[in-house]
Formats: sequence, C-alpha cells, structure tokens
Amino acid sequence: MTDTYSLAIDAMGGDAAPASVVAGLDLAAERHPGSRVLLFGDQVALAPLLARFKRAAAICTVRHTAEAISSDLKPTQALRLRGASMRLAIDAVASGEAGGVVSAGNTGALLALAKIVIKTLPGIDRPAMAAISPSARGDVVMLDLGANVQCTTRNLIEFALMGDVFARTVLGLPAPTIGLLNVGSEELKGSDQLRLAAEGLRASHLGPQFYGFVEGHDIAAGTTDVIVTDGFTGNVALKTGEGALKLMGTMLRQVFSASIATRIAYLLARPGLDRLREWLDPQRYNGAVMLGLAGVVVKSHGGADARGFASAVDVAMDMVVHRFNEGIRDGLARMQHVPPIAGQVSAPLARGI
Amino acid sequence: MTDTYSLAIDAMGGDAAPASVVAGLDLAAERHPGSRVLLFGDQVALAPLLARFKRAAAICTVRHTAEAISSDLKPTQALRLRGASMRLAIDAVASGEAGGVVSAGNTGALLALAKIVIKTLPGIDRPAMAAISPSARGDVVMLDLGANVQCTTRNLIEFALMGDVFARTVLGLPAPTIGLLNVGSEELKGSDQLRLAAEGLRASHLGPQFYGFVEGHDIAAGTTDVIVTDGFTGNVALKTGEGALKLMGTMLRQVFSASIATRIAYLLARPGLDRLREWLDPQRYNGAVMLGLAGVVVKSHGGADARGFASAVDVAMDMVVHRFNEGIRDGLARMQHVPPIAGQVSAPLARGI
Repeated sequence: MTDTYSLAIDAMGGDAAPASVVAGLDLAAERHPGSRVLLFGDQVALAPLLARFKRAAAICTVRHTAEAISSDLKPTQALRLRGASMRLAIDAVASGEAGGVVSAGNTGALLALAKIVIKTLPGIDRPAMAAISPSARGDVVMLDLGANVQCTTRNLIEFALMGDVFARTVLGLPAPTIGLLNVGSEELKGSDQLRLAAEGLRASHLGPQFYGFVEGHDIAAGTTDVIVTDGFTGNVALKTGEGALKLMGTMLRQVFSASIATRIAYLLARPGLDRLREWLDPQRYNGAVMLGLAGVVVKSHGGADARGFASAVDVAMDMVVHRFNEGIRDGLARMQHVPPIAGQVSAPLARGI
Repeated sequence: MTDTYSLAIDAMGGDAAPASVVAGLDLAAERHPGSRVLLFGDQVALAPLLARFKRAAAICTVRHTAEAISSDLKPTQALRLRGASMRLAIDAVASGEAGGVVSAGNTGALLALAKIVIKTLPGIDRPAMAAISPSARGDVVMLDLGANVQCTTRNLIEFALMGDVFARTVLGLPAPTIGLLNVGSEELKGSDQLRLAAEGLRASHLGPQFYGFVEGHDIAAGTTDVIVTDGFTGNVALKTGEGALKLMGTMLRQVFSASIATRIAYLLARPGLDRLREWLDPQRYNGAVMLGLAGVVVKSHGGADARGFASAVDVAMDMVVHRFNEGIRDGLARMQHVPPIAGQVSAPLARGI
C-alpha cells in the first residue's frame, strides 16, 4: 500500500467532538509516532486543540471544512452533504490518499457512505461489522454484528475469512481458531446455511483452524478466537453480553455501598476491582470495524472518550500497517475451490439466516 | 381442570436421580402441601428416600417401573421404551390423570415424547421453550429458547400470547409488558417477520401491553416482562448472558483471592455477595418450560440439585393450579381477528427468520 496518509479522520463526529477526537489522536500518536494522518474538520475549532495536543499536531494535517453530518441525520440526507468532514475523510480513502477512515459520527451515515463511496472489495459479497470483546481466554473477534440481518452460506464463509485475517492483523494471532455460532455443538443442529458453511470451512484453507459449532456461552469462555454469525444473532449476542455485565456491575455497586463494612471491603479490594472494570470497559474495546470494503473503515462509539477514540485509531492503524485487505485478497484466492464461494449462490442457500 | 393428580414426576431423570428428585419434591411439598403427585420410578430405590423425606411421601403416590431413559439415548430410541419412567409420566398427562409433567432427564427425549404423546394445543402452530431469567427490574420470561430454529410471524405472535399467559400465571403479573427482540428499536429494523409480528401484536388484545422492539441489552435491563424471539436467537442470547455472568463470577473470585487484604474484603462483603450469587443462581431459575402443548411440561436441568428441582416443580405447579392452558385458549379466541393467526400463513411469512 502506498497511501500518502495512513488514516483520514473525521474530527467532527462524536458527542464531545472535536475535543475527544484530538485528545484521542494524541494518545494514539504516542503509539504510532511515525504515522501521517489527515484530519477533516473545522479549522477554527481544531487550531486551539492542536496547539494543546502536540503529539496529535505532529502527525496530522488539517483539511478544513465547516460542514458536518449531525448524529440524527438520515443516511439518504447525509449522502447529499458532499463537503461534510465524514464524507471528505471517506473520499480520501476512496481516492487512495489514505488507507483507512475513523469516525465517531452518525453510524448509519458512515456505513452507507463507506459502502457507496469506498465500495466492497472485489470478490466479497457483503461487508460485515466486527468487534473485539473480552473473554476468559483473551480477546475474541465477533462478526457480523448487524450489517447483514440475513446471511447466506457464502456470507458466513466470507465472514470467517475476514475474521481470520482481522485476528491475525489486529490481535496478532498466528493461526486464530474459528467457531460458527449455533444452538448446539452437534453437527446436525441449526439451519442448512450453518451446516453448509461448516462443510465449506472444513474444505477450505481455514479447515485446520475451524473448531466447528460454538454456543452462546463460548463467547465469554473464549472457546475460539473468532466467532462467526449472522448480523441479527451477532448484534443480539453482543448487546446481551454487555447488558449482563452491566447488570452485574450495578448489583456489585449496591453490594459495596450497603454498609460501612462493605465500603471498607470495597477499599480493600479496589485495585483488583478497578483492574477488572478496566478490563471489561467498553472503551477498551471501542471500534466496530467494517470489514470487506476496499479500505479500512472503523466506527468509534459516539460517546467514546479520548481513550476510547485512541483504541479505535489503534485498530485502524493496525489494519492499515499490517495490510488487512491484502490478507483478504490472498484468502479469497485460496477460497476459489470452495463451492459456496467459487460457484454461484444457489436459491435455497440465498434464502436467509 | 379435574385431573386426579396435579403433577406426574419422572423420578429417574437427572444426574443425581432419584435422590435429587425426592429431596426437591420434599422442598416443593412444603409450599404445596395439599397437592397430589404421581411419582414414576424404581420402588426399591424410592422406598428409603420416601422414608426419609416425609413431606414428599405425604403428597406422592409411587408407580413402579424399573425402566428408565438414559441421558445419551436418542429420541427415536427413547420412543420405543414404553415402560420408561419419563414415558409413563408423560402418558399420565396425555390421559388426563395428571395436569403436568416434570423431568430432569434426557431433554431431546422429553421434548419429542411430549410433542408426540401429549400433542400440541389446538390452535397453536408450534410449541415453544420458555425460561425465567433475572433482570435489573425483576424476573423476565424469554421464549423461544431453541424449540424452533426458524419462526414465522404467526409463531412469534403465538409466543407473545404464551409468554403473556406464562408471566401472569407463574410471575403473577396482572398485565405483563411484551418486547420483540430485534437489532434496533426503530420500526424499520429487522426482518419482515418481525415487522409483521409487531403489527399483528399492536392490532391484538395484547396491543396495550406491547412495548415494541427491544434489543439484547434490554434482557438484563428488564425493559419488558416478556421477551419474544425465534428459537435460534433466544438460545444464543440466553447462553451468551449466562456466559457473561459466569465470566464475571470467575474474575471476581480471582480478585478476592489475590491477597490477605482482598480475602478480608470478601469476608466483609460476603452477605451481600452471597445474596447476589443466590439471586443470579441458575438453580433458582431452573425449569425450562415447553409451552403450547395440551398439558404442562417442565424440563429441569439434569444437574439440578434439590433446590433446583423444587423450582421446576414450583413452576409446573403454578401453571397447573392457575390453569395456564385455559389462559392460552382464551387468548387464542381473542386472537382470531389477527391476520397471521386467523388466516393461513402466506409463503413469504413461512420462510423463516
């Protein structure tokens, strides 16, 4: 890749933008001092921030625009704002000026614009949304998280391929294990699509890494490094897991604030409890990634703080530096003999989940 | 209902059967002293247990059989064991001798036998599996949990109806709120089935209780009392939530066992932590219920202890005493004008999620 800039960043997206974006970029710059970043946004708002955050200023070039896409704008309306900071950042990736884009702005607009402007990578049927989540055995990559409510066998196999390359480039795993999310680990469980996807993966170059079917509890257990599922199930599973952890956090706060004795208990256990909270902190796992486009696209949570935004920049930077899309191209070439990828998707396979 | 016995119980199913079954029945008998229960199993094994657990002995009549269905038997093989304790208990429900059956034995066999022998309630297209789980705002009923991997609009509406009656009869809620699990709360999100099910529910007698779409995090938040979803998503969500709580429990144990200070912290906070653990304890929520059959069918977890088995008996007893199936019949009658229930299921709707 010979992009002039590693990343194009939308400075105006997010609840606390552009302050959180520049502060996050400053943190990320410490880890990637040699990189070059294009920063799209309002010069007047950015100038004082860059004067304060010197590491961010050292790696970025500002491209001024006063236009921005608000968080409640519909994707169809966002498409018309050709001068908006998010749009210009995406254009920079489409033109090859930058390797990837990071935005904490309007999710629907980012996904729609990225698909239309940057386009799908040749050979990939549908892009997928992936994220990293904590497990008992280390970080786990899960996809799709909502880009595709219904998936074909071919989609699931492509998600496995993209998850494999993502786990290699971002988590640094040499041979990530891959699981297909199902309602039971027996071979006969689940839909036809799942059974055919399992067959296809076993027959592919990913065969040695393919664990087979996994169940909901395997996500937090970390049974495999990559969890592949359709966008509906993945979205529900991700939010259900987060909800359960949040419930437990609320309940623990109640336990520790009950009496003087429990307040003392909290103080005694605090270092460990703080580490646990930090480990489970959604900010650390910030950055939902759109895989399968002809450029790296990372969506930071709108409410992310500087540390959260820096995590999203980290993920994008890792993908650009370790040439994520070249890994996908190589993988696709090795997939050409796998029926659902090589052949046309047959009608019953295209049916849904 | 004029069944001679409230429940028929399979004494021989479960990892620690029949001891765990009789001990559990003893606990349940304390709460339902006037009930009458048929206990199917090996008289030789049961006699000393009943001599010890007097409250259980007081409410039950033993029907001897030496035959039992092992946990690894396939449903097709289980069907042939006509003298097995589980089969005889199911037969007692089918003949009207008992109102419901509880078993901690082979899940696949129980579901298959119950469907074939007890049969589906007239007017219900497909039975569903439901369970109760903890939330920040009280207990929540979720269904389907795996009986139907693919669901039609009609199925989802029937699940909502069954969830409503279950929440009334078992949780004692006068007008439970109902949510349809989706990937976003906006009306345009999700599959056609989901949108049509939402329309159907709004038009039905459940309209005032129907909250609309809910997301994964709403399960632990307790946004609604009933969560309706297809069996694939429900199974994954239930296991994902349990997995996340288990991960948190493991991590907390590590935090508290780290040093002398944290061990003291544990002792100080122990009453609250124990209450929290008890509240989240799967044993308390033991009892997956098969709804939509012409009799009450409750599956206890195979590894349930006496307390867990007693919970399953409690749920079954509540359903029989509060005439769960009469509630379903009433609800179905009121549903007759709702298109997906009244009319025939059209081809695109029958496609599955």
